[in-house]
Amino acid sequence: MHQFPSQPVLIAGQWRPARQPVGTIQAENPATGQPLPETYPISDREEVLEALEAGSQAAQLLRVTSPETIAAFFERFADLIEEQREALVRSAHLETGLPKETRLDATELPRTTNQLRQAALATRERVWTQPVIDTKLNIRSLFAPLNGPVVVFGPNNFPFAFNAISGGDFAAALAAHNPVIAKANPGHPATTRQLAELAFQAVRETGLPEASIQLLYHFPDEVGLELVSHPLVGATGFTGSKNAGLKLKEAADRAGKPIYLEMSSVNPVFLLPGALEERLDALAREFSASCTMAAGQFCTNPGLVIVPAGPLGEAFLQAAVERFSQTPPGFLFGSKGVTNFEAALRLLEQHGARIVTGGHRLDGAGYRFANTLLRVTGQQFLSESEALQREAFGPASLLVFSESETRTLEIASQLEGNLTGTIYSHSGDRDDTFYARLEPILRSRVGRLLNDKMPTGVAVSPAMQHGGPFPATGHAGFTSVGLPASIRRFTQLRSYDNVRPQRLPVELRDKNPTGRLWRVIDGEWTQRDVV
Amino acid sequence: MHQFPSQPVLIAGQWRPARQPVGTIQAENPATGQPLPETYPISDREEVLEALEAGSQAAQLLRVTSPETIAAFFERFADLIEEQREALVRSAHLETGLPKETRLDATELPRTTNQLRQAALATRERVWTQPVIDTKLNIRSLFAPLNGPVVVFGPNNFPFAFNAISGGDFAAALAAHNPVIAKANPGHPATTRQLAELAFQAVRETGLPEASIQLLYHFPDEVGLELVSHPLVGATGFTGSKNAGLKLKEAADRAGKPIYLEMSSVNPVFLLPGALEERLDALAREFSASCTMAAGQFCTNPGLVIVPAGPLGEAFLQAAVERFSQTPPGFLFGSKGVTNFEAALRLLEQHGARIVTGGHRLDGAGYRFANTLLRVTGQQFLSESEALQREAFGPASLLVFSESETRTLEIASQLEGNLTGTIYSHSGDRDDTFYARLEPILRSRVGRLLNDKMPTGVAVSPAMQHGGPFPATGHAGFTSVGLPASIRRFTQLRSYDNVRPQRLPVELRDKNPTGRLWRVIDGEWTQRDVV
Repeated sequence: MHQFPSQPVLIAGQWRPARQPVGTIQAENPATGQPLPETYPISDREEVLEALEAGSQAAQLLRVTSPETIAAFFERFADLIEEQREALVRSAHLETGLPKETRLDATELPRTTNQLRQAALATRERVWTQPVIDTKLNIRSLFAPLNGPVVVFGPNNFPFAFNAISGGDFAAALAAHNPVIAKANPGHPATTRQLAELAFQAVRETGLPEASIQLLYHFPDEVGLELVSHPLVGATGFTGSKNAGLKLKEAADRAGKPIYLEMSSVNPVFLLPGALEERLDALAREFSASCTMAAGQFCTNPGLVIVPAGPLGEAFLQAAVERFSQTPPGFLFGSKGVTNFEAALRLLEQHGARIVTGGHRLDGAGYRFANTLLRVTGQQFLSESEALQREAFGPASLLVFSESETRTLEIASQLEGNLTGTIYSHSGDRDDTFYARLEPILRSRVGRLLNDKMPTGVAVSPAMQHGGPFPATGHAGFTSVGLPASIRRFTQLRSYDNVRPQRLPVELRDKNPTGRLWRVIDGEWTQRDVV
Repeated sequence: MHQFPSQPVLIAGQWRPARQPVGTIQAENPATGQPLPETYPISDREEVLEALEAGSQAAQLLRVTSPETIAAFFERFADLIEEQREALVRSAHLETGLPKETRLDATELPRTTNQLRQAALATRERVWTQPVIDTKLNIRSLFAPLNGPVVVFGPNNFPFAFNAISGGDFAAALAAHNPVIAKANPGHPATTRQLAELAFQAVRETGLPEASIQLLYHFPDEVGLELVSHPLVGATGFTGSKNAGLKLKEAADRAGKPIYLEMSSVNPVFLLPGALEERLDALAREFSASCTMAAGQFCTNPGLVIVPAGPLGEAFLQAAVERFSQTPPGFLFGSKGVTNFEAALRLLEQHGARIVTGGHRLDGAGYRFANTLLRVTGQQFLSESEALQREAFGPASLLVFSESETRTLEIASQLEGNLTGTIYSHSGDRDDTFYARLEPILRSRVGRLLNDKMPTGVAVSPAMQHGGPFPATGHAGFTSVGLPASIRRFTQLRSYDNVRPQRLPVELRDKNPTGRLWRVIDGEWTQRDVV
């Protein structure tokens, strides 16, 4: 059978055909439902281990590569992305169906280059090392690179900003001097390949070790489990489904290998009566925009909204239904996305949720689904709270009509770990008494708490927590967005006890290496030298 | 059958008999090998879950307890320990056989009260919260308490300083406003009970929520697995055997519950030729003192020493043998300790190690074992490197006679994760070239790197890393000793996005809550208010 030759993988500093591919994958155009022409190899075990071996060697080199070189890489890569902006946006649009101008070009691409430039700054300034110096005992500690490459599994929903070869995990891993082995998301391999070409060009131009970045498109599941638990691997960053994430977690945990996962979240939003009385239409507008944007395919999509039962809640639902039905539906990322989304909605229905609007695929070309709202009573929610918290990844939200304040608190206390939790309340103090009761329950179950604002914007801020208690992620102490905090995942804490001055890493020597690095010296944060 | 009544457990603010004990335990006197008279209950599942429920409720209260109250608790508890110093030392000596004056009274007890007072300071100053404020985006983050109690499993080797009710994990968990459910080590239940009585007295006097601290002596293994993976638990701190630790880790990991383990470590020590040529006798003295102290029952005991094959290495061995045979052996903690230690030595022998001195139990009363040295060639070590890295918990060390510098580097590269790694080198620069090749290999495999100093002293310093890569611990990014760093394990990262000022935790409000708290405001560490 004749086939186009598959696209090359990037291993050990070489773009080359996969040696013994065990199959190929193809992306689809969500706007047409047709497969795209290029094929991409599914690498075999041997090839994956080859990348791991090369990454492991690169780790030894990157550890002693100057921060300036890595920073220059990030900046050059960002520049190249901007130079190739049109081609990248075209590819990503073709592969994801995301809006070209408003989303890919105007927001996601600038976010990505901004993040890479922030990573350059963090690398150069080395703030992620957090040096601590105890001059009395002559013990000094800092956070240091891992002893091996970081495997990054990119998700389907951000072809640039979370891409395994240009996104947040990539930037965080490399900023801490760790090589990256990128596993492309099968939804957008062409975009990923193009980004990897630019990244590799920047590697060459700035003189990074060549295996600092490598790209594989796909490999069999069991090889993935071996990879994340392999003695040579440093850590893994995964953004994707809970199902896949939990399998990888189990394998990595058993081997004692760090793995950071961002898996699933329904991002509960509580609309308190005072807010609804005051600005119901505005709330419906914000909610609708947030939930239907990019066909709802955000990790922080507001998938669960708790409103008071009765006229206020009903009026909000009605306003939301209007907006949902007026908003043109976007494209789901692929046929699998449609199947999964549909199955998730059916599951919610089986457990007592009722569809109010949408709930069905749309006719015509491409993977489109009607914007969907479901409803359930507070009592029903409590009786099936596990099933009714399953994420439906798409333009859908479940409204819970809570019968009383007590019921609302019970609902909050049944919530699993989430990335975000939101409370809208009266702009004055009319909801404050209830807010004070609800907040502590919600607060401990979410990574980021919002007021009067939908959760879909995830700013690249040093104060961001894009993370949260299990099962939203694997560990509530870490964030995958926000520099320098996200770098912390890909480090080891090391202390130096009585080590001779000239043998210390420069960050721990008496003299401040940049003159600006914040360090803790005898309990005080300072930029000065040890005197 | 007549029995003394078992000692009471401390649950939900009550000292009371265990309700349905499934058995009892008794401690032994290591100096006589005789059981001690008191019996302690093995709690059943129901009782453990009752403690968990009470701890979970206490977590909600402790979260809003003032730092000052918790700090006052730590200080009062430290005072009470000092008041009861004699009785505590007597109990601990009886149960552990550790030297009364030189160890328990002169060093371990002061270390424990010092650690509690450091915890008071860390609680009061709140430095563990590490607030980050992004004024432009109005996003603010901090580390916050967990949503549930911390279960602490105390080890056998530090009846005060690592005790589940007075040690490092206890202090770290409570400093972050988490209740503690202490599981006593079966080796020293009386000491633990006495400490819990003092702790509970301090709880009462300072007004902490009563279930902030609870004490169980023992429970069936399967109940332990359920406890660490229970939805109501916040996290677990475990110090003990690798075997037990890995079982708990698996259960906790599967449930997505944080668990921090300190399991096993052989703490490799490299003696470079220049150091041996220069000060062989001093090295043998330091090594012997470190390895035989407290019968070698330290997590950081130097259990693996790499010396050059040939006359220098042989001379070091001979000097060490002399000192080992002259040093009076201490007591192992119990009959199980003797059995395990003996089995570990036999295993090393089976894999090619040869006993040079010691290697056998000593006659007479009590659990004493001859100070033991074993030897193996570098080549043998490499061919059986996994088995020869098994920890023998007692007064023993394996000397590896490395045939060449290259061989030494190979040995280093076969090391598993360890708490510490040590290099002794010439006081001038004679070993510097080789140090530079060895250090990077060793560095990435250990938490704390030492120069010219044995690893057994673990200072309570903010720069300490008492941790390291798996299997020494479960995660190389955390330390179990050293405040405030060790507190970080028992926290969640939380961000506040657009949350109204009066609803923020005080640490994140514009005004610095203490006037002294170090916070990151727009990228700069500062003690000032947001302006």
